[in-house]
Amino acid sequence: MPEQALLEEVVDKVRPLLGQGKVANYIPALANVDAGKLGIAMTTIDGETIGAGDYLEPFSIQSISKVFSLTLALTLYEETEIWSRVGKEPSGHSFNSLVQVELERGKPRNPFINAGALVIADLLQSRLGAPKHRMLELVRALSQNDKVCFDKQVADSEYQHSARNAAIAYLMKSFGNFQGDVDTVLRTYFHYCALKMNCADLSRAMLYLANRGKTLDGTELISQVQTRQLNALLATSGLYDGAGEFAYRVGMPGKSGVGGGIIAVIPGELSVCVWSPELDNQGNSLAGTAMLEHLSQRLGRSIF
Amino acid sequence: MPEQALLEEVVDKVRPLLGQGKVANYIPALANVDAGKLGIAMTTIDGETIGAGDYLEPFSIQSISKVFSLTLALTLYEETEIWSRVGKEPSGHSFNSLVQVELERGKPRNPFINAGALVIADLLQSRLGAPKHRMLELVRALSQNDKVCFDKQVADSEYQHSARNAAIAYLMKSFGNFQGDVDTVLRTYFHYCALKMNCADLSRAMLYLANRGKTLDGTELISQVQTRQLNALLATSGLYDGAGEFAYRVGMPGKSGVGGGIIAVIPGELSVCVWSPELDNQGNSLAGTAMLEHLSQRLGRSIF
Amino acid sequence: MPEQALLEEVVDKVRPLLGQGKVANYIPALANVDAGKLGIAMTTIDGETIGAGDYLEPFSIQSISKVFSLTLALTLYEETEIWSRVGKEPSGHSFNSLVQVELERGKPRNPFINAGALVIADLLQSRLGAPKHRMLELVRALSQNDKVCFDKQVADSEYQHSARNAAIAYLMKSFGNFQGDVDTVLRTYFHYCALKMNCADLSRAMLYLANRGKTLDGTELISQVQTRQLNALLATSGLYDGAGEFAYRVGMPGKSGVGGGIIAVIPGELSVCVWSPELDNQGNSLAGTAMLEHLSQRLGRSIF
Amino acid sequence: MPEQALLEEVVDKVRPLLGQGKVANYIPALANVDAGKLGIAMTTIDGETIGAGDYLEPFSIQSISKVFSLTLALTLYEETEIWSRVGKEPSGHSFNSLVQVELERGKPRNPFINAGALVIADLLQSRLGAPKHRMLELVRALSQNDKVCFDKQVADSEYQHSARNAAIAYLMKSFGNFQGDVDTVLRTYFHYCALKMNCADLSRAMLYLANRGKTLDGTELISQVQTRQLNALLATSGLYDGAGEFAYRVGMPGKSGVGGGIIAVIPGELSVCVWSPELDNQGNSLAGTAMLEHLSQRLGRSIF
Repeated sequence: MPEQALLEEVVDKVRPLLGQGKVANYIPALANVDAGKLGIAMTTIDGETIGAGDYLEPFSIQSISKVFSLTLALTLYEETEIWSRVGKEPSGHSFNSLVQVELERGKPRNPFINAGALVIADLLQSRLGAPKHRMLELVRALSQNDKVCFDKQVADSEYQHSARNAAIAYLMKSFGNFQGDVDTVLRTYFHYCALKMNCADLSRAMLYLANRGKTLDGTELISQVQTRQLNALLATSGLYDGAGEFAYRVGMPGKSGVGGGIIAVIPGELSVCVWSPELDNQGNSLAGTAMLEHLSQRLGRSIF
Repeated sequence: MPEQALLEEVVDKVRPLLGQGKVANYIPALANVDAGKLGIAMTTIDGETIGAGDYLEPFSIQSISKVFSLTLALTLYEETEIWSRVGKEPSGHSFNSLVQVELERGKPRNPFINAGALVIADLLQSRLGAPKHRMLELVRALSQNDKVCFDKQVADSEYQHSARNAAIAYLMKSFGNFQGDVDTVLRTYFHYCALKMNCADLSRAMLYLANRGKTLDGTELISQVQTRQLNALLATSGLYDGAGEFAYRVGMPGKSGVGGGIIAVIPGELSVCVWSPELDNQGNSLAGTAMLEHLSQRLGRSIF
Repeated sequence: MPEQALLEEVVDKVRPLLGQGKVANYIPALANVDAGKLGIAMTTIDGETIGAGDYLEPFSIQSISKVFSLTLALTLYEETEIWSRVGKEPSGHSFNSLVQVELERGKPRNPFINAGALVIADLLQSRLGAPKHRMLELVRALSQNDKVCFDKQVADSEYQHSARNAAIAYLMKSFGNFQGDVDTVLRTYFHYCALKMNCADLSRAMLYLANRGKTLDGTELISQVQTRQLNALLATSGLYDGAGEFAYRVGMPGKSGVGGGIIAVIPGELSVCVWSPELDNQGNSLAGTAMLEHLSQRLGRSIF
Repeated sequence: MPEQALLEEVVDKVRPLLGQGKVANYIPALANVDAGKLGIAMTTIDGETIGAGDYLEPFSIQSISKVFSLTLALTLYEETEIWSRVGKEPSGHSFNSLVQVELERGKPRNPFINAGALVIADLLQSRLGAPKHRMLELVRALSQNDKVCFDKQVADSEYQHSARNAAIAYLMKSFGNFQGDVDTVLRTYFHYCALKMNCADLSRAMLYLANRGKTLDGTELISQVQTRQLNALLATSGLYDGAGEFAYRVGMPGKSGVGGGIIAVIPGELSVCVWSPELDNQGNSLAGTAMLEHLSQRLGRSIF
């Protein structure tokens, strides 16, 4: 099958890049991952998933979870309730910077930097009785894999190193843009980041972004318009300070995590997930970006 | 013809928004424009142009010219010669801010903020004997309209108010990222901004962005890959501090100017230009953005 | 007695300024103070204290306590232990800004902005078994007034509105420049700010700054060199963003608090404390500054 | 004579520090100076000047000239005409930063950073027919040395590397806070910086700062109040980002230049000038600061 061969080719193509990036090491649980892992999986809108390399091995999805939490918020809140508290613009600053949050009086630039994702977690915490459990349900349904779970060790380890995120949350609280108890919301937030999934799970779970809001089983999770809007936000702000370069090289809406995963979609066609733990200077998977770039060239497909 | 009717509808739809924005008034030549103008024109990749409203009335294209100058630079320089001097990321700051240029040691974030466009103008000035004349040739050929010209009054007026742009150019020079004589480059830059074109001209001229780099007469101006890359940069950085909102609402790569024009494309399908002089808080045409939003909804088309 | 008459004159002179400033209102306990209060007290190095106006009425000393906590730290730590964790330079930013703390990787500019005072409180908390009690002892001894105490209502109210300071503490913790439990240190810090003293108490307590480190009873609290250094820091950083203006108008090392108090000294001669709750735009007592300016002119004395 | 011996001691004391700093090298004319030079001169208010080391060798006074130009402005303008255009506060940023000038809409923080000194030069240029000649007259009279002159080579060399200062001037012009022709004012400004004087000249010239505004020949150059205010500004902003540290270690109002000179005063007593070309990380003379620190300790004198 030609597409299976293409994914194998993509993995082989980028293998020489191993060793050029750096595994995230701010918590031991992430630092200990095998740096040599390489995986890719793709799900087309007809529901078929194929993969190559270590695509069945689970990893910590980290900031990729910000797509799930924003989506969940979109199902629970009116648009204005969300966008009055978080913006839609690229930040131009590092993902964990407080500078802009202070200058813009507590309103984060977008839902994919830490400040923005914390506001979203705060929204979920306010409205859901069991926000952690609800997230598990959602992600298991989306990926059609009941074994998806939180890595407790990662969640705890993140919590042990949470000072920076606590600072961001308290700063927003000082401006009146954070309602819940900081400690409780942080624990929920770190659980989301500590979801453990593999490339196949993630490519399946993200299919709704490529399929007008419809999940693998045909349910409409969010509307077609909301899906377009979500993809637009991913295209402009999904890769931290590397969104422009990613659009330039890959040309797909996408979201990365410091665990080395990146998800991306070609609307109307497919969702894809790559994984390679070594990161570039912007904190995005180095070989992962290269896999997506090569895939986009070989498919002759991009949104541009 | 249904599409003609659609454009008429779009113009009618946004007319009630007139009066909600503000005409740019930093130079008299722009401040005197009739605030009530509304125009739209669309060119499809089969070469047909239609329009509605004031689509045949010329206006000052201002920053839309930054697309032409970057394109011209791409035909004259190796990629690395360009991207070593200007970045590809959204700036997160106002279009004429010096803060980031200082913090990032003279390298502008992208070619569509003033600092970046000045670096591009500097590149053109270094390599072209007659950079102003060459731009006229290019734009006349692209729009198939030999009457396109510079508005000398606007160019002179801009030059009279050039202190901010001079500051940006000298700051970059202090970091070694500006080669030419500041005064000479500024004059060239202001001439580019002072190009006078109508919506029909601009939609025709920008067709190459929708057509894999091929202009209206079939010439390959830039390669297919370069076109994709250029559209990616427009999608992430084309609308100043409003790029995220524009992607969210309109979903097309685009570029705005303070004269009230905005160009946008759906790759593989069409290029479009809207014009309405009143601007929103981000400096983008208020009714113009609304026209594109409505068009995108009615066509059911966006890149996302 | 002529100096007594001078103080009366000073109070009368500034009374017309009442109504031009704004009482701090971020916590109710401060907002409810009588805006019309005006007091001044002066202690000379021979130990005599005189006063005028409401100089015997206690008020919340707020940031003036930062002088006491730094002094206490100087008696407990080696200089390098302190100055490796906090700088000596004016900040150029608002007293509660996180921007500089982030840009300078967790090291506050000086011990008189909130971030710096929190580091000092953290140092005291680490070394003292009962840091709140120890402060009371110190301040009672310095002012020779055993009735000085914390205003529990103010301390609790500050704690209820502590998000901004918590954000600062967590940000420093994320850079490794905060050792203790944030909550515990904040409670200590707010107690220090909630000390209730009158102008006579404060002018007596601060006499060591004018007297080579020697307190009212002749004890050497800190050395002569340390006293000079402390005065130098007060002169450059004691009045938030108004240090330059204060030096220009008053010409004495000083420290202000949002409760409307300001202490100042003429080294070798006297210490003075003024109080008037209405603040200027920099957060310093408006009439208080005017009292000191008038006093300095009439005495013909300043450090410059 | 004991004070002569003290100055010799001071020079010997700091000689071991040679080699620890870096000579300014942004222009060749400064880079070529002999790094091993060490000089000190002191003038008491009774008019006597003594010196040690290379105190008779002329050097480029650079930013020390900012004291002369502000003084000259004070003799030509009303206070409000000056302080409406430049502030009195420490900047918290590097001496040649544009960030603050942009954020504070064209008003520099104080007259001793480049932006502020350029505004002062602009004021002088507007009111004086021959601002360069007038400065020479002033400085020659103050130092009682008719041979003081501009180093044309330095002035020209500065002008060749003036992009950064041009950027600052144009930025202020864009905010309406710069009246003159940028090029003309820059040339005047660079001439001031290129004044060539020795330690004896400078200590004599600055005596008015120690003597209530009275120059060596008894003329009142500025008033006693203005002198106090000028000293206050020097104490808070005279040493760039090192003003706090300088106050802490030396305890005198002072002003440094990248040529390695520093002037300082003890009001009512003396003015002093040190010179050693190697600079510390803040751009202040490393051994020069140490000479002043040692002098202040041995004299047992400081303003604090």
